[in-house]
Amino acid sequence: MRRITVHDLDDLALGAAVLGTGGGGDPHIGKLTAAAAMRRHGDVTLIDLADLADDDLVVPAAMMGAPTVMVEKLPRGDEIVHAFEELQAYLGRPIRAVTPIEAGGLNSTTPFIVAASLNLPLLDADGMGRAFPEIQMVTATLHGISATPMAIGDEKGNSAILNTIDNLWTERIARTMTIQMGGVAMIALYAMSGAQARAALVPGTVSLAVRLGQAIRTARQQKEDPIAAVLHITGGQRLFRGKIVDVIRRTERGFARGEATFQGLDGDEGHQLVIQFQNENLIATRDGQVVASVPDLITVLDAETGEPITTETLRYGFRVVVVGMPCAAAWRTDAGLALVGPRVFGYDVDYAPVAAPT
Amino acid sequence: MRRITVHDLDDLALGAAVLGTGGGGDPHIGKLTAAAAMRRHGDVTLIDLADLADDDLVVPAAMMGAPTVMVEKLPRGDEIVHAFEELQAYLGRPIRAVTPIEAGGLNSTTPFIVAASLNLPLLDADGMGRAFPEIQMVTATLHGISATPMAIGDEKGNSAILNTIDNLWTERIARTMTIQMGGVAMIALYAMSGAQARAALVPGTVSLAVRLGQAIRTARQQKEDPIAAVLHITGGQRLFRGKIVDVIRRTERGFARGEATFQGLDGDEGHQLVIQFQNENLIATRDGQVVASVPDLITVLDAETGEPITTETLRYGFRVVVVGMPCAAAWRTDAGLALVGPRVFGYDVDYAPVAAPT
Repeated sequence: MRRITVHDLDDLALGAAVLGTGGGGDPHIGKLTAAAAMRRHGDVTLIDLADLADDDLVVPAAMMGAPTVMVEKLPRGDEIVHAFEELQAYLGRPIRAVTPIEAGGLNSTTPFIVAASLNLPLLDADGMGRAFPEIQMVTATLHGISATPMAIGDEKGNSAILNTIDNLWTERIARTMTIQMGGVAMIALYAMSGAQARAALVPGTVSLAVRLGQAIRTARQQKEDPIAAVLHITGGQRLFRGKIVDVIRRTERGFARGEATFQGLDGDEGHQLVIQFQNENLIATRDGQVVASVPDLITVLDAETGEPITTETLRYGFRVVVVGMPCAAAWRTDAGLALVGPRVFGYDVDYAPVAAPT
Repeated sequence: MRRITVHDLDDLALGAAVLGTGGGGDPHIGKLTAAAAMRRHGDVTLIDLADLADDDLVVPAAMMGAPTVMVEKLPRGDEIVHAFEELQAYLGRPIRAVTPIEAGGLNSTTPFIVAASLNLPLLDADGMGRAFPEIQMVTATLHGISATPMAIGDEKGNSAILNTIDNLWTERIARTMTIQMGGVAMIALYAMSGAQARAALVPGTVSLAVRLGQAIRTARQQKEDPIAAVLHITGGQRLFRGKIVDVIRRTERGFARGEATFQGLDGDEGHQLVIQFQNENLIATRDGQVVASVPDLITVLDAETGEPITTETLRYGFRVVVVGMPCAAAWRTDAGLALVGPRVFGYDVDYAPVAAPT
């Protein structure tokens, strides 16, 4: 059990952007909102899965929608607290801890707003070990935990408590509501017991993100290679060095989809890498060969600073290193790949692990 | 206070089809589901607005969606009871009576399923005095009554409790959920007190529908003119005699939209009438001149039998009489026309009353 202060948020956001694999929304925007809540209400206590009693109630809080919209439409901050409190009122018992649903992107900082505002501990875990674009794509689904009852609300004051027959129906109905609500909604869902959380969540991912951010920052200060630090902590590998020569993107059905093309430099001259994304980077293809694929993490880092580049900020001319990092072990099972493997996203390729799990 | 039996449902459905102005779904489908519930659970007691105590809780129950889908996708029957009970649980107090939200179409019989299944009285009133395509288009909106909290559910078991900032947002979000749920959803909404119901609802419209159905049936039996009977009871007028020569229809954004063209017969030879509809008949134009418009009721009746023809069953060659009937007085106010007048539906015409209110 330890405190996370406003000053830790920079490292957290930086590390979460690495784990966000280009998606999950820009964590720096989430950081600003979380920092405002923590300045007003105080620091946040981080607890471990082991600190939970078996029957403690744990609830993830998150934003839902297309990152391209989130950039344009900053959250006010209290919408997510309202959604969380609406779910608590519906469940009729106190929630013991809030947890991130994603380790990566904007939603790594979103639950800090709830934790600070309601003086609740934040669980050092998450439901993905990275970022994913759809509600059902969490390890909780593999453990038969229902996404609903789920609270969903917008910044205008519209809200709902949703109950669905399975987590895919939660995604379908909540997605259409999110689009109608203006492209972004606040959600609280996957209410689970402490025992379920221990079985189902990916442990230690909040502190992993902080550690990643610290390592990048320290490497920059000491004129060392920040990308080497990322690879050391995550057990990942360098996939490509190059510059961005083309980006195609479109926001459709509530998602930011597209692809980015990289021309090789510094040892990768004469080669080309293409990344296909749907909010997150999903498939990396080098000269026509898939070299990394979802559920492994594919992240584009600035070649000099190690700064992660989200799919919505990819621009022509950026000099980058593309890294591949192993996903949580749960995703490498048959059930895991059936839920979040390449074919789920419409790519007719087999999953090939980038490296052994760390 | 009086009983409505299964045998009254034929008359009710027939009369409700007249008041449905071509929309609101085929009441004969609703009748079958209501009859099944009443055979199992017993007759339904009809009460008047005057029978309610000021603080009695009254809740309308209805189906939402495109009639063209409803025809294809018969309700199981208990979905609407579930939606009603979910709202009651959310409100945390017993509902004293169920009421129709529409006097016309399928939703005239929908609340009978709830009344029979839960042994609740049915209020002889409704929120429109006809059928309308959108949630906010009820007299309750004119009285500042909120559509939410609202329960919405589908036949698969997905459901939600919705809270919105106004009744237009209820329509927007519930419509998109309905489409996602397969085109039809069951809803319970506009929870109101007995005092509010007396101020806001259109009185006596369930018994009006029964009386209309009885009159058409009696006229047929006695070889009299059923259309004359309809006009006598509603204070309406004959707009056109003719046959259908063209029907264009499309289901878009959850609505059945289109237009029907009629060629004159029996005194209207050489003339043409065009009706534009969006679930309901909205505008009747004779030789280019608007002769009736929403919120007045425009209904197409079989020239021989007086059988009302819904927009989804309009077919080439039908010989019909088109009638116009005055709407509830509340709709003829400035606020009423701002909510349901022709311009709301995208027609650049002024409302011209078909006849003085009865």
